[in-house]
Parts: sequence; C-alpha cells; structure tokens
Amino acid sequence: MSSPFYNSHHSPIGAFATLTIGQKGQTGGLGLELPGPANEGIYVGVEDSEGGRYRALPFFQSSEGRAEDFDVEGLAEFSRSPAIDQFRGEEIERTMGAGIDEWRARDLTFRLISPLRPVPDPDVCEVDALRDAVTPAILAEITVDNRRGGKARRAFFGYQGSDRTVGMRLIDEEGLVGVAQHTTTAIATDDPGVYAGIAFQAEKILQPDCAENLAFLVGNLGLLVGTVQPGEIRTFRFAIGFFREGTATTGLKTRYLYRRFFDSIEEVLRHALARFDTVCRESEGFDARLRRRLSPDRAWMAAQAIRSYFGSTQLLEREDGRPLWVVNEGEYRMMNTFDLTVDQAFFELALNPWTVRNVLDLFVERYSYIDEVRFPGSDESHPGGLAFTHDMGVANAFSRPGYSGYEQSRLNGCFSYMSAEELMNWVLTAGLYDAYTHDFAWAVSQRATFLAALTSLINRDDPDPAARNGVIGLDGARCEGGKEITTYDSLDASLGQARNSLYLAVKGWATYVLLENVLRRLDEPEAADDARVQADRAVRTIAAAADADGLLPAVIGEGIEARTIPAIEALVYPFVLGLPIDPELKKTLGRHLEAVLRPGICKFADGGWKLSSMSRNSWLSKIYLCQFVAERVFGHAPDTEADGAHAGWLRSEENAYYAWSDQMLAGRAVGSRYYPRGVTSVLWIAEGDRPLDQVRELLVGVGAVV
Amino acid sequence: MSSPFYNSHHSPIGAFATLTIGQKGQTGGLGLELPGPANEGIYVGVEDSEGGRYRALPFFQSSEGRAEDFDVEGLAEFSRSPAIDQFRGEEIERTMGAGIDEWRARDLTFRLISPLRPVPDPDVCEVDALRDAVTPAILAEITVDNRRGGKARRAFFGYQGSDRTVGMRLIDEEGLVGVAQHTTTAIATDDPGVYAGIAFQAEKILQPDCAENLAFLVGNLGLLVGTVQPGEIRTFRFAIGFFREGTATTGLKTRYLYRRFFDSIEEVLRHALARFDTVCRESEGFDARLRRRLSPDRAWMAAQAIRSYFGSTQLLEREDGRPLWVVNEGEYRMMNTFDLTVDQAFFELALNPWTVRNVLDLFVERYSYIDEVRFPGSDESHPGGLAFTHDMGVANAFSRPGYSGYEQSRLNGCFSYMSAEELMNWVLTAGLYDAYTHDFAWAVSQRATFLAALTSLINRDDPDPAARNGVIGLDGARCEGGKEITTYDSLDASLGQARNSLYLAVKGWATYVLLENVLRRLDEPEAADDARVQADRAVRTIAAAADADGLLPAVIGEGIEARTIPAIEALVYPFVLGLPIDPELKKTLGRHLEAVLRPGICKFADGGWKLSSMSRNSWLSKIYLCQFVAERVFGHAPDTEADGAHAGWLRSEENAYYAWSDQMLAGRAVGSRYYPRGVTSVLWIAEGDRPLDQVRELLVGVGAVV
Repeated sequence: MSSPFYNSHHSPIGAFATLTIGQKGQTGGLGLELPGPANEGIYVGVEDSEGGRYRALPFFQSSEGRAEDFDVEGLAEFSRSPAIDQFRGEEIERTMGAGIDEWRARDLTFRLISPLRPVPDPDVCEVDALRDAVTPAILAEITVDNRRGGKARRAFFGYQGSDRTVGMRLIDEEGLVGVAQHTTTAIATDDPGVYAGIAFQAEKILQPDCAENLAFLVGNLGLLVGTVQPGEIRTFRFAIGFFREGTATTGLKTRYLYRRFFDSIEEVLRHALARFDTVCRESEGFDARLRRRLSPDRAWMAAQAIRSYFGSTQLLEREDGRPLWVVNEGEYRMMNTFDLTVDQAFFELALNPWTVRNVLDLFVERYSYIDEVRFPGSDESHPGGLAFTHDMGVANAFSRPGYSGYEQSRLNGCFSYMSAEELMNWVLTAGLYDAYTHDFAWAVSQRATFLAALTSLINRDDPDPAARNGVIGLDGARCEGGKEITTYDSLDASLGQARNSLYLAVKGWATYVLLENVLRRLDEPEAADDARVQADRAVRTIAAAADADGLLPAVIGEGIEARTIPAIEALVYPFVLGLPIDPELKKTLGRHLEAVLRPGICKFADGGWKLSSMSRNSWLSKIYLCQFVAERVFGHAPDTEADGAHAGWLRSEENAYYAWSDQMLAGRAVGSRYYPRGVTSVLWIAEGDRPLDQVRELLVGVGAVV
Repeated sequence: MSSPFYNSHHSPIGAFATLTIGQKGQTGGLGLELPGPANEGIYVGVEDSEGGRYRALPFFQSSEGRAEDFDVEGLAEFSRSPAIDQFRGEEIERTMGAGIDEWRARDLTFRLISPLRPVPDPDVCEVDALRDAVTPAILAEITVDNRRGGKARRAFFGYQGSDRTVGMRLIDEEGLVGVAQHTTTAIATDDPGVYAGIAFQAEKILQPDCAENLAFLVGNLGLLVGTVQPGEIRTFRFAIGFFREGTATTGLKTRYLYRRFFDSIEEVLRHALARFDTVCRESEGFDARLRRRLSPDRAWMAAQAIRSYFGSTQLLEREDGRPLWVVNEGEYRMMNTFDLTVDQAFFELALNPWTVRNVLDLFVERYSYIDEVRFPGSDESHPGGLAFTHDMGVANAFSRPGYSGYEQSRLNGCFSYMSAEELMNWVLTAGLYDAYTHDFAWAVSQRATFLAALTSLINRDDPDPAARNGVIGLDGARCEGGKEITTYDSLDASLGQARNSLYLAVKGWATYVLLENVLRRLDEPEAADDARVQADRAVRTIAAAADADGLLPAVIGEGIEARTIPAIEALVYPFVLGLPIDPELKKTLGRHLEAVLRPGICKFADGGWKLSSMSRNSWLSKIYLCQFVAERVFGHAPDTEADGAHAGWLRSEENAYYAWSDQMLAGRAVGSRYYPRGVTSVLWIAEGDRPLDQVRELLVGVGAVV
C-alpha cells in the first residue's frame, strides 16, 4: 500500500486559502495567499484510554516551545514533560477524495471536508447561493470511539499560527469558541463541550492548571479540546476559516468578494458551521461520483489536482463592484496565467462557465496589446496585431495594462514573450466558452476580438500571403530580437520555442478551426473562410513534415529532430466540441503518436510519459490532456502503467510536500509545484459523445442546482 | 575604533515599524509589527567611476535570484554576471545619532533620517501637527560626489520585500516613483531623474535591456536608480513608508491613528517627502543636543535606545475615535507591559506626557482587577485590593479585560503574576505624571484609584496592622499558591521574587512617598498620613536589614543573601520630582551601594554592572536607572569604565543583530532583545535641579512647539 503521508490542499473556493496537511512533520498549516505550505504545526489527537497521555497525527514537531526566550536560565520550571506521542505510520489509514479527506488511527477518525460546488454568476445569481459558495472556510470532524473505554478521554484540534506579524488569540463568544491568528485564520466550533487555549505546549492546554491559564497569549499554539465520555462515540465539528479584510490586490484595487457577506472571521466561522451538513453531503456525493468513474490512481490524481486548483482560486471584487476571478499559479502566484487558463477551462466550463468569460473579458479589457512581428535575426517589423499577455500580475500585484508580470524582451528562453500562444489561448478558451455555453450575445460582443485575432494569427504566419503555411513563423516585435516561447518555458527548443513549433502548429490549427466555427455563426463568412484556409495549410505543413517512420519533428523545418507527445494535445479542442478533425491531420498525428510511445522515445523507464524525447522535463497536466486525446481521439487503451508511474511521482517522499505539482524532471517536482493546472485530469471522466457534459455531471451531480 | 556594523532601528513614531539596518549581511529590512529584523536585503550603492561595476553597502547577500525556480534546467541564460561588490569594512564610516544615521564609503554618503518629535495630544492638538508627528515614514538621502568623475554614474537604493503573502510592485504616479510590497512597505522619491525596477538581480535593474523589462513582477528585489553627471555632487532623497490599512488589533478593535490622514502608502510617501527639510532639521538638532550633553558611549547608547523605543511604538485609534498608545515589548511584543511603562515614563513625560496618561487610563479602565492575598504556603485568603495586569496583550491581540497575556497561576518564576509590582507601577507612573504635568483635573479623576491603590498596598504588607513593616509580605490569590514575581522575571529569587524583595521594598517606599504627595494635594489627609506611616515603616525595615558591613540582603528575612544594585533604583522617583528622600534610607542605601560596587560583588570582569551578585543576568535599562541614582543621589562619578563595557556588549558581533537589547547574560543578549526600555538612558542628561525639564529640553529643544 502506498504511503498516506503526502500534502493535500483543503480549500474554500475563491479565498486563495488552504489548510495543507498530509506529509509528516511541520509541513502543512493554514495558508492564506502563500506560494507553498505554511509550515506550521497542526495538532489532531486523542487521549489514551489510560488517561494523561495522548496520541496525535504526525503533523507537528514536538518542542518545548519558546519559553526559553523569556526564561533564559530555565529557572521557571514552566515547561511540562511531553505527553503526546505521534501515532506510528502503520497505525494510520487515509482515504482521500476531492471533497473528503479521512484519517483513521486506532479509535480516532479525523475528517476534513472541503466545499465542492460551482460558484454561481454573481451578476445574476441569488445572494444566498453566492454567499454559500464563497464562504471562506472548510470543515473538520474529529470522532472518537470510546465505547470500550472506561474513562473520559480528551480529543483536540489546533494549530501554531505562522504569521510573523501577529499573535494567536482566543475566540470566546456566545455560541462560538475557537483559536485564531489575528483577523486572518481560525479554527472554531459551536460545540458547547469544547474549550480553547493558547500555550507554548499542547500539554498545557490539555491539562491546564486552571481555566485562567488558558489565555496565555504569549504562546503560539492554539488548541480546541473536547471530552468523550466512556461508552460513547462522539464527534466534534469544526470550521476552519480564512479572512483577508482590506485591499486584496494592488495595481487593480480589489477586495475579496466574500467581504460582501462577512465582516469578520467570526461571521465566516458561524456561517460555515451552520451549513455543515449540506457541505458534507455535497462533498461526499462528489467523491462517490469520482470513485465510480475513475481508476484508483486516476481518481486520486484528479482529487489531488482539484484540491490544488481550489487552493489557488481567488474571487475578487473591483471597486465598481464587478467580480474578478483569478487562479493563481501555484508556487509562482502569477495571476490568471493564460496558458493555465486554457487548460483549466474544461474544468471551469463544466463547473462555472462565467469565470471563464470573466477572465477572457479582463484579458481583452486590460491585458491585450497590439504588436508587430519580425523574422528571426531581422530588425524589420511587419504588421502583426492583437496579442495577450502571459498573465495579469504576480502575488496580488496586478501588472500594468498591456503587460504581464513575467514577460521580458531580448530573451530566447524562460521569461520571454508568449504572444502567439496566448493569442491562441484566448481564441481557444473563447471558442470553448462560446460553443459550450451558447452565450451568443457574448460572442457578438467579442466579434471584433475574434476578427482581430484571426488577422494577427495570419500575420504571424508570414507577411507574404503566398508564403503562408498555417504555422507561426515570426516572433513578436516586443521580443526585440529574442524568441517567443511556449508554456513549456523551461524546456529546450523541442517544446520551448514558439516559432515553427509542432506543438503550436497543431494548436494553431485548432485555433483556426474554432475561429471558423464561431465566425460562421457570427455571420463573418469571409473571415471564416480565411480561417479554414489557414487550418488546411497547417494540416499540409504538418503532414509534410513527417519522416518515413511517421515521426514528426518537434520544430518544423529547423533541424530540431526531437519527438514530442504534445503534438497531439490541441486535438482536444475540436474534439470536446464535436467539431470535425481533419482526417489527414488525424492520420499524421496518429502515426506519430504510435511511434513516440514506443519504448525509448517518449517514455521514462517507469512507464511515465516523457513529453519530449530530448528532455527529462515533463508536465503532468499536459500528460493528462494528451492521455485524453490518445484515448478518445485515437482509441488507445488507458495506459495504466503510466497512471501508476505518474501517481507514484506525486506521492513520492521528495514531492509529497508540494501537494499536486506539474513540472517533473524525471519524476522529481522541480518547478510548477503546489500547482492548479492538474484539473485537466477531469477529462478522463469523459467517455461519451459530449465530453464536457459528462465532466459537468461529475462535478455538479445530476440535478444539482447551479 | 569600534565596528560600525550593528543594527539600528530607523522608525516613524507610533507605526510599529522600522527600517532596521547596520549589521553586515541580510539582517535588516523594512519591518512592520515584527519581533525582530525582517532579514531582507537592502541595497545602497553607486557605480564605479569606470562604469559598469558597482559598489554597495554590505546589507544584502549576493545571489543569482530565484530564476532557477522557474527555469529548472538553466536554459534561459537569464541571469547576469554579478556586477556589485560590497564596500570593504574598512572603507565604511558611520556616524549614528538618534535622528541621523550617516554612512560614508568613498564618495558615497547615505543618510537615514528618523523623525524625532513629540506626538501632540490628539484630543486637543492641531490636526496638522498630529499628522506630521505620526506620518508613518522615515527619510533617506544618497549623495554621490562625482566632481572628479569623468563619467555619469548610477546610484541606487532598494530592498527585497520579505512578506510571504504578497509580491513587489512599482509605484509610478505623477510626481512619485517607487518600489513597494503590496500596500504595506515602500521606498519612493519625487526626484524626476530616478527610475524604478523590479527583478531577481540588482544588475538587471541597474543596466536594463529596455524600460519595459523593469516591471518584472516575478522578481523580489525593487530598486530606485538615479544618475549623477560627471562634475557634480548630487543628492537623491527618498521616503521609506509603512502602512497597515485595516484592523490593527483584535480583542480591542483598533486601527492605526494615521489612517485618519492617509488612505494609502502613496499618500504617506508624498507627505513625508514634502516635509523632508523640516524633519531633517529637527533630527539634526536633536542629535546635536545629545552629543553636546553626553559622553560618546552614553550618547551612542541613548541613541540606540531611543531608536529601539520608537520602533516599538504604536499609536492606535479605537472604534469610538479615542487614541490608544501602545509600546510593544521588543522581541516579545507584549503591549504596554507595565514594568516597561514605568521605566519609559521619564522619556515619555518629557516628550509627550499625554501618552503616559493614556496608558494609565486604559490600565484603570480595562486592565485592573481586585484580588485577595495569601501568605506563602497558606490557602487562606485575606483582603487584598486593586492590582494591575502585567501587560495588555501580545502581538496585536489585546487580552481580555482584567488579564494580561503573560501571567499564569501556580508558578514560582517566569510567567507568574506581578500584581504588587504593577500596582506600584501604576502609582509611580501616575505620581510622575501628576507631579510633572500638574494635571490636577486628572489626579482628581483618579482619586478613587489612588485611594484603592493605597489600601491594596497596605493589605499586601500584612493583614495584621500591628505586623506591618512597609514591605510586600503576601502573594496575590491569583497565584493560587505560586509566588508573585518582579520585572526581573527570569532572574533567581534575588531579584525575581516579589515578597520581601529589597528591590520592591524600596520601590514600595517610593510608591508610598508619591502617594502621600498626591493624596495631600487631593486633600485626603488621612490617607496621606497612612502612606507616610507605611513609607516610614519601610525605611525602618530596610535599615534594620543591613549587616555589619552595610550590605543589604536581596530578600529581607528569608535567608537569601545575594546583593543587588537595584536596591537603589526606586530613589529615582522622589528624586526627579524633587521630593525629599528619607535620610536614614539614603544613608542605608548609600552604604549598600558603596559595598556592592566593590570588585567581586556586583561588577563583571569587564567593569560592567552586575545587578545581582548571584546571577550573570543583567538588564541594561535598569543599570542606566541605577547609574542615574548613583550619580545624582549619591554623588558617584560617572563610571566610564562601565559605560564602555555596556556599550561594548551592545556593539559586540553576537548582539549587534538585535539593535538595543536589555537582558544581558554576562554580556550576551539572551532575552529582551530588540527592546524599547533603554530610554531610561535619557536621565543621564539630567544634571540640574529639575531633571525631567532637562530631559525635555534635550528631547524637544528650546522653544520647540509641542
């Protein structure tokens, strides 16, 4: 059996918040807007049946606390002997879904319940539904089975707040008892049988000298403690809240949208506790659907990925009251990185399509720009056109209009511009939104954007119409002589270079296909025809690039002979919308796929997929996408050996700290850690003819209210 | 010459904020509400005359930045070769006063200017005066002498923000350019010749590829860069701002008072820059007075102490608009710890006496309690009376009414109750305030408090009037069998125990003397007589405790024969108010002092003062107080050897990180580090008959507006 000790997010929706827990040691905690785990101790445990000693899950480092900073010569005899042992690893079992994460050790059960539901469109939904969806809290339960016990036993739950600017405090109000750090994080219950305390040591709270000593604000550990009588099974319920009160972001000033409903973390906690049963039921239903539909490895990876996604979500409100949806980029915290948005769109469209539209609109409004283009090595600029930025800023700082926080000129690799790919990403995401939601009014409102995108794409192929081959052939002038890159920004030229990239050639083809689709419905036949022409050119260019064995080069016509799996990736877009895939292209890519999946080319020794034959760098979110295409477009059987290898990477001791991570260097998470993009995995669910509808059924259940 | 490389605070008043800088390495930074230095890199430097290479003060760790987290295989060639050398230690000179901290290295001069002025009483003062006093910013100047240079040279100033929740950003507004971390910290200038940038590496900002690349929000380093033409001396001026927008404290909800005047850090920066000349002039004047009046060692210690004090100050506003003054307790961040308040009162009374009254009022309103008292070893309670808490909370969390964040029952040492000493501290602080300000209306308003304090003090002596000896003989019932302690909480019984403590016996005597003084003016002759009787009893008890050599025991009648310097400490209270000191007490303590200052008793080998013969633990703030008493009351010559030793402790490499620290274990700062209490040093200034007036003249200058 694989180890249960890996970190997972447990997050409200849109609060950029997480209780991360699972890896052994002080590696989790209540994190608000962080690039990684908070690294604070979490205490979950129960008194032994003999009394006076305790056992706890292994999520803290035992310590004498900080008393020695005050009592430098140790004269006070203030410290208690340690009385808490951690459960041994083999005593602990874990069952983790996307909604419920359940830990069992002897007669203790600890359940963490994360909300899993769509966020309704704030502009049209009922106030209550919005409030319930964005309440910045998760839930927890501790159950102790003391039916065979002869003594009352204490159970406890708490944390050591790690915010360096503020101390721990108690919450002690009518009907609410808890521990908190300032206004920002808290754990509380409405159970009248539970008391709270603050100390350096858990032992001081579990066996206090007297009630007055429980408010030792010098301490940094807060615990909630309840008692289970002999002969009973007792469950204690908790809410874990997060709250950011003031300005959430700079550059574009916002606050969290939940501030419409809550003025304090205490209000958040009360509301979350009042909805305990509903949230539990929804999350259990989600997990049941997930398990029914996927293999254990896939269900586990999808659950981890969904958790990491929600931990990165941030629903904001602009000063004029308009909602603003952000997905932060994991450890990098770039905001709405477009090459993540496009991959997460399958999940978001099924769950709450308005967030996709919201991001597209902000890209048009603030994060688009007009650029010229240049041939490599040339200073001469040619007409280009519309492009979009890589992201909207970093770590709660929105970048200035027209610029990302990431892109830099005069580079050939990481941190260069992604103009062409982000342009495709806008069209693809918009095309998915349009075709899936049938929000024709929105498509009409973006008519000019679609048309400008087409022009810009064509200009980026070649200034000479006669020389166009359907593939990006120039770099943006903003590169100032550098080269545009792709989302594979830290990969070598096989996937990292934009110009003549096979990966982008197919993505460009799909972009033209989706453009044609929307332009016809917008009654723009000439433009639609232009898109069709370009799509067909791309097919011919790609087909002509195959060698005798059917293998395609990673970069067309530039002598880079690496072999890449993501050549097939972009077939996902027409496929999920039921648009036809060009037979020649399908055949060409099918032969390529067969070839690269042979041993020694695009496989690691453990059977995991290797996106490029030339690199040990692989991205799991992209592997998931390509698996979907391989299975659904090309009829491959699910590669269960690969699934096992991929899940093994994520679970391995060296990677378990980062919850779900994307970029794996020979199985080691080296970048894009603690990352949201793994929700491409939900496509695995889609076995029927209308894939996104199937994803939607998984996510929201049959008959669920949206 | 002693090393210039020690950390110092550079702080606005009442913002709980500091730019800490001075020790080599990445050990300073812009700290808001922190228990120690922010540990972030500070960049101050200038281009060499040859161009292309730079020299900087040694306040950062050179690094390649975090690019490798993104570009895991290092394909991007993104990093620049390091081009910044740190000045060698011997090239650097520093002149530090309380207001100006000036660094010189070759032709670079860097000045940090901290505001030094009273905070006017918010209830009665002009709005402008209040705003100017509490503007949460300090100032800086970089001057480059390029008169002999043949090339334009760049000068720079910036920092690597260390707040884990948010990223760095640029400020680029009409007339203001700067770098900031979210809404909370920033450096900016109104100099139109300066540009700003963000990057992983300073080199990227100093020599940018192009202007667009300067907004690399992924980076964590922000720099401001100006150019000095050949042949000119040029000075660039900066403001360094701090801003906490929302709820400042919990328990008792407040915001920073400066929020009345400023809605953003940008507004703070603009206002600070507009007042540059005035603030500079005030701070220069302060430093000149300090240097004129004190020896170099004493002036240096006072300057360090004043800086650390201001870094701990926090001027808040309650929800009803009332101001609330807090001094945080250095690394412990306990709020208005009363045994610090009393020691800092000399400084605060001279500077802005309303803050003393403000704290006293909140102690009465919220942090007083009624307790009974017990003899050691007995469970029987006797009438006690009024007492005050040790503090008002910890790290922005106010404790509940009637309780500190620190005190715990059933203890005999550190973290036990300080009821008796804090009761004395209220009376002494109130007595100082009353007598110094002649705010008779306030004294009248506190008539009941003074009377209750007297009753409580007498009850803590002995329940049997016949057995009273003027000294605390019982412990508070809240101790529940434990022992009350003193401010020397981590010292052994020689100074740590409250009951029968010689230190507290003299402090109690002073308390009765000040009580008698105020009660007579309040026309409470009977109570005043009672206070006088108790004072006289204390004198007899103390005098009778002397041995044949004139040495007094640290604890009277309990067989603890340690010898302590702080026996004399409390003479300061009547002395500074011009109240008579009982001749017998003066004689007794004078003989004791002569005896303990002989070699081998209360001196360290280096000549530093050792507060207790039994312990290596010494508190500098208390040494300063006792030096004042020794010199002014007993006519000792200033102990310049001791001054040198004490300054040496603070400057030593192992202590230099913590700026001014109080508790020294054989010269090593082991507790009470980064601490505000050293402002007792300003009493050194007081050579005339009206000591506090002299302190006031030092602090605010002649003719200064208050």
